[in-house]
Amino acid sequence: MSTDVVALLRAELGERVDVDPAALDAARSDKSGHAASGLPLAVVHAASVADVQATLRIASATGTPVVPRGAGTGLAGGANTGGGEISLSVRGMDRVIEVRPDDLLAVVEPGILNADLNALLEPHGVWWAPDPASRAISTVGGNIATGAGGLLCAKYGVVRDAVLGVDLVLADGRLLRLGHRSVKGVTGLDLTSLVIGSEGTLGVVVGATLKLRRLVEGERVTLTALFDGVRAAAVASAGVTASGAQPAVMELMDATSLAAVHRLLSLPAPPPGAAQLTVQTDGPVAAAEARAIADVLRAAGGTVTVAADAAEGEELLAIRRAMHPAMETLGTTLIEDVSVPRSALPDMFDEIARIERQFGLVIPAVAHAGDGNLHPNFVFEGPDVPPVVWDAAEELFRAALALGGTLTGEHGIGVLKRRWLADELGDDQWRLQRDIARVFDPLGILNPGKVFAS
Amino acid sequence: MSTDVVALLRAELGERVDVDPAALDAARSDKSGHAASGLPLAVVHAASVADVQATLRIASATGTPVVPRGAGTGLAGGANTGGGEISLSVRGMDRVIEVRPDDLLAVVEPGILNADLNALLEPHGVWWAPDPASRAISTVGGNIATGAGGLLCAKYGVVRDAVLGVDLVLADGRLLRLGHRSVKGVTGLDLTSLVIGSEGTLGVVVGATLKLRRLVEGERVTLTALFDGVRAAAVASAGVTASGAQPAVMELMDATSLAAVHRLLSLPAPPPGAAQLTVQTDGPVAAAEARAIADVLRAAGGTVTVAADAAEGEELLAIRRAMHPAMETLGTTLIEDVSVPRSALPDMFDEIARIERQFGLVIPAVAHAGDGNLHPNFVFEGPDVPPVVWDAAEELFRAALALGGTLTGEHGIGVLKRRWLADELGDDQWRLQRDIARVFDPLGILNPGKVFAS
Ligand SMILES: Cc1cc2nc3c(=O)[nH]c(=O)nc-3n(C[C@H](O)[C@H](O)[C@H](O)COP(=O)(O)OP(=O)(O)OC[C@H]3O[C@@H](n4cnc5c(N)ncnc54)[C@H](O)[C@@H]3O)c2cc1C
Ligand SMILES: Cc1cc2nc3c(=O)[nH]c(=O)nc-3n(C[C@H](O)[C@H](O)[C@H](O)COP(=O)(O)OP(=O)(O)OC[C@H]3O[C@@H](n4cnc5c(N)ncnc54)[C@H](O)[C@@H]3O)c2cc1C
Repeated sequence: MSTDVVALLRAELGERVDVDPAALDAARSDKSGHAASGLPLAVVHAASVADVQATLRIASATGTPVVPRGAGTGLAGGANTGGGEISLSVRGMDRVIEVRPDDLLAVVEPGILNADLNALLEPHGVWWAPDPASRAISTVGGNIATGAGGLLCAKYGVVRDAVLGVDLVLADGRLLRLGHRSVKGVTGLDLTSLVIGSEGTLGVVVGATLKLRRLVEGERVTLTALFDGVRAAAVASAGVTASGAQPAVMELMDATSLAAVHRLLSLPAPPPGAAQLTVQTDGPVAAAEARAIADVLRAAGGTVTVAADAAEGEELLAIRRAMHPAMETLGTTLIEDVSVPRSALPDMFDEIARIERQFGLVIPAVAHAGDGNLHPNFVFEGPDVPPVVWDAAEELFRAALALGGTLTGEHGIGVLKRRWLADELGDDQWRLQRDIARVFDPLGILNPGKVFAS
Repeated sequence: MSTDVVALLRAELGERVDVDPAALDAARSDKSGHAASGLPLAVVHAASVADVQATLRIASATGTPVVPRGAGTGLAGGANTGGGEISLSVRGMDRVIEVRPDDLLAVVEPGILNADLNALLEPHGVWWAPDPASRAISTVGGNIATGAGGLLCAKYGVVRDAVLGVDLVLADGRLLRLGHRSVKGVTGLDLTSLVIGSEGTLGVVVGATLKLRRLVEGERVTLTALFDGVRAAAVASAGVTASGAQPAVMELMDATSLAAVHRLLSLPAPPPGAAQLTVQTDGPVAAAEARAIADVLRAAGGTVTVAADAAEGEELLAIRRAMHPAMETLGTTLIEDVSVPRSALPDMFDEIARIERQFGLVIPAVAHAGDGNLHPNFVFEGPDVPPVVWDAAEELFRAALALGGTLTGEHGIGVLKRRWLADELGDDQWRLQRDIARVFDPLGILNPGKVFAS
């Protein structure tokens, strides 16, 4: 049976069907650290919409599961492909079809990297705002499929705010064009939004019409503020939001994170227990906004350093950007992703401290403080997440929900959080969502075991 | 059977079940000019979520169609209720449950009027940005159910950009809480977005968590530019968008509209054939932006008048706001609502001129030029849309689609456009959308005959 599937794929797609053991092994995992069990049947390197359609027609005819894949940088195991499954990579479909600065839109294939797209857009005076920290290594299609966020999204929005339409290949191989080229449109149900963040369960994104912004004019001002502890920093960041200022970036690092990064970058150690906010303003009133924010931060007890110029600003931000590598020096990391209303950020940090004590763990945490999205990191030895870490993570999810928050602000459910999905949605909504997915994919061959598997 | 339904409703809801003939007759129509045939069984004036649930349980048990209703200002016939149907009004559920300026959110009941909400929010320094021209008379729930737009949405977004979550009662009476209080969240499918613009076909919106903005500081500058003809005005407005300026308001009136409004307001007649753009800028750089826009408009051949102060600015905008009343003086109006990419606005006006010639009609048109959304008005005698008007409207839809646009930018499909829905979506997508609606409402009792009826 499996041999048949590969033979069928080969007959239609030739050398774009890859069964090299190294390729099969690579398709088992993403950047979550988690890997599927068993080896995929094949990796299909689609070069066109027709390739994607052919693959799905064969998969439907043979009942073979298909896992869509961009660059495999996901942190929820969504692209992980296991035994008996086809990994369908659209990474090779990376053309920009059209750029219309006058209409502030671009039409692209899904496999282009976010940063490559923005490099192409810049000479046109426009950009696509979603900026996951993985922008240099993740695809636009993957960003859409996960509903990615990033550093700039409190001010400039997330993927959900930046897509006009998607072309979607259904499980049976049919191609649908969802959405509009016009900025307004309420014709029928908003299926474009439904596909954003659907993690490959509804169809394969084979094209997208993106909503662009004009490059922001004016300067950028970067500053940091050091606080006695993480609660003080969180209170200060909530104060910035409440003051009405709109920083482009507002990132929070707790004491453990800050110390680990300073060690990695060979910087002088920060004062023990100190937490840091990094803020960047931009646009025509950047300097005045930065001054107002600095005042709020000082009044909240922060020691403020304003970068003298853009280069110094980049150095300050580089500290926040070094979080991932710094964690990797400590062990294997499970990066969590809860999100709460902004005013609940201090309470959420209290909860993290409580969970650290309760489970005897250290949980270094950073936050996109401007939008209440926290990334607590669980660090452990070896490849598998120990049970105590899952127990602590579960407690973390409970705490976020109790504060009016959500399980995942930007990384998605994938395999790693599917156990808790019904806790947040409730059983009725969980079932409704799964039934909607079934309308797109009646045989359940698209990314089975992800998101809705119980 | 019908008597039983009313008796069942009465037993649970008492005097909130209204069978007064005048009330029943009023429920037959909205502001589209169209009315359903037959008289509704009853109007239920729901006062609570429990009332909505009780109504839907009885409706499900008896297979009785239910038409959700806000203020009945819709322009697509979506709230029109006919023979054998229950009109379920949530207009009486108009409380604001919570306002959180620090988190930029508010939790409201669906029946509150948009303008009433904003009046309540203002002292908190925040506002809900969607501003349909009907803001004084339409409900927030209706705005959500239609995915309403308005004048300010090129700069400040439409309803789709301004809702964090909705509470939805399903056809069988179950209550679901969709979405989040946090600004970020990708937990499962984005059902909140799916409900926005679903026109009462998926469930009854009984509560909403709205995303607020801070009141815009700084001045407002208003200007008008008069052009020789509508094409020149449309080219100029596309030029403003392409220049990178971001007006808060940019409205276009063609010659017939402008002349009709001037007559109504007893203003001196504009030059024959003259069309007008009305532009407003706001925020910290409003004055500089207005100057830059005025330069673009002059270079495009416009005669620019800048309002000396806010009062004069309001007078200029009042001309645009008088469009509806001016049309009503001419006869019965069918207000169309096509939307195209902004650069296609001049071509769309050419198409309107062609359709006027082809069908021997005058089609006064205004446009939210900042986002490419046009409202061509068909004016006729008597209550029923004559066949020639539908033929011309059909030609209008075709033209908009050919230019990369859509049937409806903000008013919805309702009954008036359901014949053309499949033309835009394609049969596959049309069926998929209808099947998704069936997951929410397996018996098809929610607003049957609207949107998806063929
Ligand atoms: C260092 C680092 C930093 C990160 N920072 C951020 C961040 O700031 N914000 C953030 O949101 N995420 C972040 N991520 C997570 C990840 O980069 C994002 O989720 C990204 O959007 C995934 O894109 P990808 O192309 O790698 O998708 P993949 O990992 O290949 O796939 C992710 C999911 O999307 C599905 N999928 C991918 N492409 C398609 C398609 N064309 N059609 C249908 N389904 C598809 C897959 O099946 C899978 O479920 C980070 C990851 C790393 C390693
Ligand atoms: C003078 C005038 C100007 C207008 N200008 C604009 C404009 O600028 N932009 C714009 O977008 N629209 C405009 N409209 C159209 C109309 O006001 C909007 O569509 C508005 O959002 C409808 O709100 P409503 O409360 O009147 O809804 P209704 O007319 O009562 O209902 C509209 C639709 O929504 C459904 N519905 C209503 N409430 C609920 C609920 N709680 N749950 C589920 N379904 C519900 C109904 O079933 C129906 O399908 C205008 C109308 C008029 C008369």
